[in-house]
Amino acid sequence: MADAVLFEFLHTEMVAELWAPDPDPGSGGKKKSLSVLEGLGFRVGQALGERLCCTSSSRLPRETLAFREEVDALRFLCKDLWAAMFQKHMDGLRTNHQGTYVLQDNSFPLLIAMGSGPQYLEEAPKFLAFTCGLLCGALHTLGFQSLVTASVASLPACKFQVVIQKS
Amino acid sequence: MADAVLFEFLHTEMVAELWAPDPDPGSGGKKKSLSVLEGLGFRVGQALGERLCCTSSSRLPRETLAFREEVDALRFLCKDLWAAMFQKHMDGLRTNHQGTYVLQDNSFPLLIAMGSGPQYLEEAPKFLAFTCGLLCGALHTLGFQSLVTASVASLPACKFQVVIQKS
Repeated sequence: MADAVLFEFLHTEMVAELWAPDPDPGSGGKKKSLSVLEGLGFRVGQALGERLCCTSSSRLPRETLAFREEVDALRFLCKDLWAAMFQKHMDGLRTNHQGTYVLQDNSFPLLIAMGSGPQYLEEAPKFLAFTCGLLCGALHTLGFQSLVTASVASLPACKFQVVIQKS
Repeated sequence: MADAVLFEFLHTEMVAELWAPDPDPGSGGKKKSLSVLEGLGFRVGQALGERLCCTSSSRLPRETLAFREEVDALRFLCKDLWAAMFQKHMDGLRTNHQGTYVLQDNSFPLLIAMGSGPQYLEEAPKFLAFTCGLLCGALHTLGFQSLVTASVASLPACKFQVVIQKS
């Protein structure tokens, strides 16, 4: 379906736009661009998390979006959220049972458009920042504060590390 | 399907990000933001036009993306492209048979999130710029140079005017 590629095309162009040479050297450059992408992702994640919880019959009712167990929220990201975004499930979910989770996607769609050689590895962070923010935003909607980072060892596979912040 | 709303959420947040107060008064402000949105739309439209032409069995083969008649290209935008983006068809297509076309959407999805009172009318252009660029980019892929503008008389209805540029 084209509406799935529409998101991917828009994401690609948004990254390209933010990485275009900035005529103003004082504007913060790449660091600021990553933070803009994360912020966009966070707000989209909040909205998407709310929409998915409200439309999925197996989810909790509107007034209690929060999941009781954090592992249920992580499973929701790996299944429902990933299916809505990429029409598939995350390939793996591991945890140390102390609030840290590693979500593995063996073929992350937003990295597939890049080349797969090791020379592209340093380009990967800009294609991951939006999704890190999105996971964090969805978790926020579900009642969990988190830090989300991503790492790539071999393109187009990647891992998202989620650390739940205890209040 | 959530992947349709994913595009709409991302579009909304992208507009909000570009409209956020800019600390640099010399950066061009709203005019520059509209032009950034149009440029993003143009590139997404090019990619989407190519994808749709190549995957639709009723379309021309890969090596001849261009439509012979401009009205066929406009019909393609109103049906195939609109269905891929918004899961519906455009509500109307009129032409003066001299290269000017008016495409009418009685309930444009990217305007629905706004309020519908007349006080919101002046906010509308920022929600239309991306799609103007997108239509222009798709037409470019199909072999036509064009100027695309949009107007709103009563939210959430809008009209896109396409003027084909003769070479």
